[in-house]
Amino acid sequence: MSSSGRRVYLTDLPLEEALSRWTGALRARGLLEPVPAETVDASDACGRVTAEAVCAARSVPHYHAAGMDGIAVRAEDTFGASETTPILLPPDRFVTVNTGDAMPQGADAVVMVEEIRDVGGSFEILAPAVPWQHVRSVGEDIIATELLLPQGHLIRAVDVGAMAAAGVTAVMVRRRPRVVLIPTGDEVADAAGPLRPGQVPEFNTAMLAAEVAGWGGQAFRHSIVPDDPERLAAAIEAAVGTAAGARAATGTEAGCDLLVVNAGASAGERDHTAMVFEKMGEVLVHGVAIRPGKPVILGIVRGRLAIGLPGYPVSAMLTFDLFARPIVYGLLGLAPPERERLRATLVRKVHSTMGVDEFVRVTAGRVGGRMVAAPLGRGAGLVTSLVRADGMLVIPRTSEGIEAGEEVEIELRRPRAAIEAAVLVVGSHDVALDVVADFLHRADPGASLTSAHVGSLGGLLALSRGEAHMAGVHLLYEATGEYNVPYVRQYLPGRPVVLVTLAHREQGLMVQPGNPKRIGSIADLARPDVRFVNRQRGAGTRLLLDYEMRRCGLAPDQIYGYDREVYTHMATAAAVGSGAADAGLGILAAARAMGLEFVPVARERFDLAILEEHMAAHPVRRVLEVLDRDDFKHAVAALGGYDLSATGTRIRVLP
Amino acid sequence: MSSSGRRVYLTDLPLEEALSRWTGALRARGLLEPVPAETVDASDACGRVTAEAVCAARSVPHYHAAGMDGIAVRAEDTFGASETTPILLPPDRFVTVNTGDAMPQGADAVVMVEEIRDVGGSFEILAPAVPWQHVRSVGEDIIATELLLPQGHLIRAVDVGAMAAAGVTAVMVRRRPRVVLIPTGDEVADAAGPLRPGQVPEFNTAMLAAEVAGWGGQAFRHSIVPDDPERLAAAIEAAVGTAAGARAATGTEAGCDLLVVNAGASAGERDHTAMVFEKMGEVLVHGVAIRPGKPVILGIVRGRLAIGLPGYPVSAMLTFDLFARPIVYGLLGLAPPERERLRATLVRKVHSTMGVDEFVRVTAGRVGGRMVAAPLGRGAGLVTSLVRADGMLVIPRTSEGIEAGEEVEIELRRPRAAIEAAVLVVGSHDVALDVVADFLHRADPGASLTSAHVGSLGGLLALSRGEAHMAGVHLLYEATGEYNVPYVRQYLPGRPVVLVTLAHREQGLMVQPGNPKRIGSIADLARPDVRFVNRQRGAGTRLLLDYEMRRCGLAPDQIYGYDREVYTHMATAAAVGSGAADAGLGILAAARAMGLEFVPVARERFDLAILEEHMAAHPVRRVLEVLDRDDFKHAVAALGGYDLSATGTRIRVLP
Repeated sequence: MSSSGRRVYLTDLPLEEALSRWTGALRARGLLEPVPAETVDASDACGRVTAEAVCAARSVPHYHAAGMDGIAVRAEDTFGASETTPILLPPDRFVTVNTGDAMPQGADAVVMVEEIRDVGGSFEILAPAVPWQHVRSVGEDIIATELLLPQGHLIRAVDVGAMAAAGVTAVMVRRRPRVVLIPTGDEVADAAGPLRPGQVPEFNTAMLAAEVAGWGGQAFRHSIVPDDPERLAAAIEAAVGTAAGARAATGTEAGCDLLVVNAGASAGERDHTAMVFEKMGEVLVHGVAIRPGKPVILGIVRGRLAIGLPGYPVSAMLTFDLFARPIVYGLLGLAPPERERLRATLVRKVHSTMGVDEFVRVTAGRVGGRMVAAPLGRGAGLVTSLVRADGMLVIPRTSEGIEAGEEVEIELRRPRAAIEAAVLVVGSHDVALDVVADFLHRADPGASLTSAHVGSLGGLLALSRGEAHMAGVHLLYEATGEYNVPYVRQYLPGRPVVLVTLAHREQGLMVQPGNPKRIGSIADLARPDVRFVNRQRGAGTRLLLDYEMRRCGLAPDQIYGYDREVYTHMATAAAVGSGAADAGLGILAAARAMGLEFVPVARERFDLAILEEHMAAHPVRRVLEVLDRDDFKHAVAALGGYDLSATGTRIRVLP
Repeated sequence: MSSSGRRVYLTDLPLEEALSRWTGALRARGLLEPVPAETVDASDACGRVTAEAVCAARSVPHYHAAGMDGIAVRAEDTFGASETTPILLPPDRFVTVNTGDAMPQGADAVVMVEEIRDVGGSFEILAPAVPWQHVRSVGEDIIATELLLPQGHLIRAVDVGAMAAAGVTAVMVRRRPRVVLIPTGDEVADAAGPLRPGQVPEFNTAMLAAEVAGWGGQAFRHSIVPDDPERLAAAIEAAVGTAAGARAATGTEAGCDLLVVNAGASAGERDHTAMVFEKMGEVLVHGVAIRPGKPVILGIVRGRLAIGLPGYPVSAMLTFDLFARPIVYGLLGLAPPERERLRATLVRKVHSTMGVDEFVRVTAGRVGGRMVAAPLGRGAGLVTSLVRADGMLVIPRTSEGIEAGEEVEIELRRPRAAIEAAVLVVGSHDVALDVVADFLHRADPGASLTSAHVGSLGGLLALSRGEAHMAGVHLLYEATGEYNVPYVRQYLPGRPVVLVTLAHREQGLMVQPGNPKRIGSIADLARPDVRFVNRQRGAGTRLLLDYEMRRCGLAPDQIYGYDREVYTHMATAAAVGSGAADAGLGILAAARAMGLEFVPVARERFDLAILEEHMAAHPVRRVLEVLDRDDFKHAVAALGGYDLSATGTRIRVLP
């Protein structure tokens, strides 16, 4: 039940139907016409869209110009001339000209220096001139009044040049479509300010505003409005309903072209957006069969285009892209630029729900000649999944999911060249890998390193499936105390692998500053007052813990929190730092980053495992070059807890 | 001999060698390092490049948050609970929470509403809670201090969102590289002002400045400097040599990162740029084996990167793209974005010179499933060839040219989707075709019409070679007085063609305003005081002239200017308008555009010839839809000289 007592239901409208219902209604009411024009200096018009055809104001060239060095003549005066019957032109029948000079009045041809004979101030002509020979006549490139640029044209640098050449100094362009973004929610607070627990930083409108600018529009971020239908209605009314409000919101009384409310778009008790839209205009669509982003609202409010976006950042960005992007381009009279697509092999199975179009962020890269794509975390709250995404995979509503190994088409969110050049590292994470990435990019701005943290064993499995160029591994084999080699033999049977040492590093217990619980060893983890945070199965650090536990005779059920799994050293550090745990096993660099204390437990070797067949690949060689650099070793050593004396050492593991 | 008495020779350095010599010298002197950093608001940083790694200032979420509606508990308190042995939690052992609420102090798990039983203020727990179940713990998305964006990263909208989420309010970015553009030349004048004959408008720096902005740099356009080495040196000195000059040129005492002089780059008497560079620094490269653009200068002046560009706009743009683009991106620490490439069939032979890399502008489009590319005019002065270019074809220096029908790779200068959707019209030109283009684009902003004016016969030949979707034709068959059909049978033998009427239109003699020479008919063209301008062989208008001349018994040598050929109606009008001719044959619309008088001669049918196999193609259908529109017909009728009563009529010409 909504607060006003009316039930609100979300529909499950298919995406195309939602779009066509909305744009259809907008078109019918003349709301999808290009925005009005404004005049700008032609030299500042790059990136703007012509609102009318641009015609040349003068011809180029604007005068008849000599096309050669020689003499300008009247062609008739030369008719009949030949080597044997030269015609003598007296000084008043020609003018000496250089290339580019204006043709003298009456002259209609240029005779080249090579074809005349100087006879003391006069010239002998040895061949007849054809009218207009060697003359660049007016308008050879552009003729005054000719169409230079059509209307609806996105102006580029060369167009700026052509307009200047043709004497066009001002040009009518579409003004930038204005988008007012209203954030709403009691829990939402200014992202810049200090936040209390329970408050959520308002950052969606920062993202949306940057998108609008990139599309050629102009965004206006409203202050945060609480979860109160009256106050939301008042904010909307001020922004779009009155001239003064419009001026306050957009600096002009015409107000905005598109109103966006984020969020309150769902059908819960505190979701008022749909009802406020309905009261002030109409809701055309509420609820689309997509994930994420289902509770989106498309409507018309006070005669303006209005969208209510869901609150989670991934949902907000996706629905804004689906429903606002074509509108903003449409208001400019442009088609939205098509995004590049790429076929790739999906390396991990993705489940999906029938009846819902699922949008899955993926990373991608080329491994051994094959383009691969790996799904990223699908939580709608994970803004990092947007940052890390190389592309978007759409699983249609007719599908229950896609199996690993299937070929899929992804829509790119990063340039293809960057994806092609990326080094994919899957497995255990180490902060030194971030340093590798930094050096790699500095040495070659086109190169980058994409890493996925799935633990050491996960990395070896990814290698075996051809998902990555290399895997970060630190796996202690209890029986022999040997690192990595036995696991490579077990998980990559029959395949030659090279283990390249990244570094030796210190693992230890991270504890709160001052070590209030006086934790000094693995044995202390069994104390009833100690809450532990563990790493996931398959992580090298988890294997190390199990090894150390067995050494002191501890069983998992003796440690509170043994079952609580996090996926990175930093997550362990965050759990300890936030007080959610008293101790966790991890590396010194992570402890330092969070200002924690560190109780050393063991020294281990962190290797990059690389299939021998990939050793010669360009991205792999680039990484190996970085490992040989002294400045790289210094940078890692400075993090603390690393020994780089063996960095770059290669161990061939034969099957 | 140069004015200073020293001979200057241009080298023929291969392109790659020129680039590596220059960048090698710049690198050796530390001049290709990224520019210094500056701090900007993170919310304004979209499009900027990170100058250092950006780390999270707070975790996301920044507090332990309930992940479900239910009660927050201490997990230990629930151990042992089951359906049969429920555990009763008194009010002081739990707190009711909604999703997103902060977890109360001491609580480490949420039990869902569904798994508890309300017993009057207390709750019965029916299953044990695992520590941290249904809790979004601190840093689940981003952990404070974690790497958010690497250095050298081009910031996108999602990155702006992630920074705001992680409490990053300011970010260190590369400042925009500063490029000072100095135009030079005695003949060069402000493009905005009135121009005398012999003066050339200065528009190159407007183009170059727009390019620089698009690359992420900041351009400063200097005033025009005359062809005087002292004054050029003084201008350069002021711009880069002194703090005050630098402030005047760029608003900052640090001055520019790249100095560009346009032109004076060649080795002629009035070309001083190379020598001024040499006097004030050094010239590393002067002359590269490319066309256009050979006389480019790459050097270092007063410790700054310096480029001398050739003067022709096409040469200037090409050399700027080749030599300045990678530098400006390099100063930002980025690799220049790769341009998309496309394989296409070259439809016309292109000659090239051995030893020189030739850059040929081409138009492109998909005709009948095949991507085709046609070379544009190659004159370095034709700025319209830059405007019209869909892509660039490079003919390597090892080649003497490319035959028609060969497959080539072109580097795109327009989005691939726009090229794929373009309607290619080759043949005779009519102003009504510009109106078609306008309506086409208004109806579908993704659609466009590319037209090449090669005359009616040229159009039919282009159709037969599969270069175009349709050809504009108006070809009078003398024997029968019939239009177009006989020519289609002759030039497209064995191929079914549909002729779609664009319009009937009036052809006539264009004469100067007031008709000072009293030209009333074709017969008057033979008068000795009348200078005529003709259309090229193969043009329908030329055939019409020949027909009319025969009717009154005129031979070509009786008409002064019969051999002077121009390629469009507008070029005819320009020749008459500029006084270069007294009369020319063409359409009323062109005469009107140039303010000329018009003496009607004949009424003709202008058809669009379309191979029947292309009639169902999407771009073709779009054009036919336009021809059916009343508003289109009104717009063409308003041009004058058109009869649209038969527009859209189709005639099937069977072989």
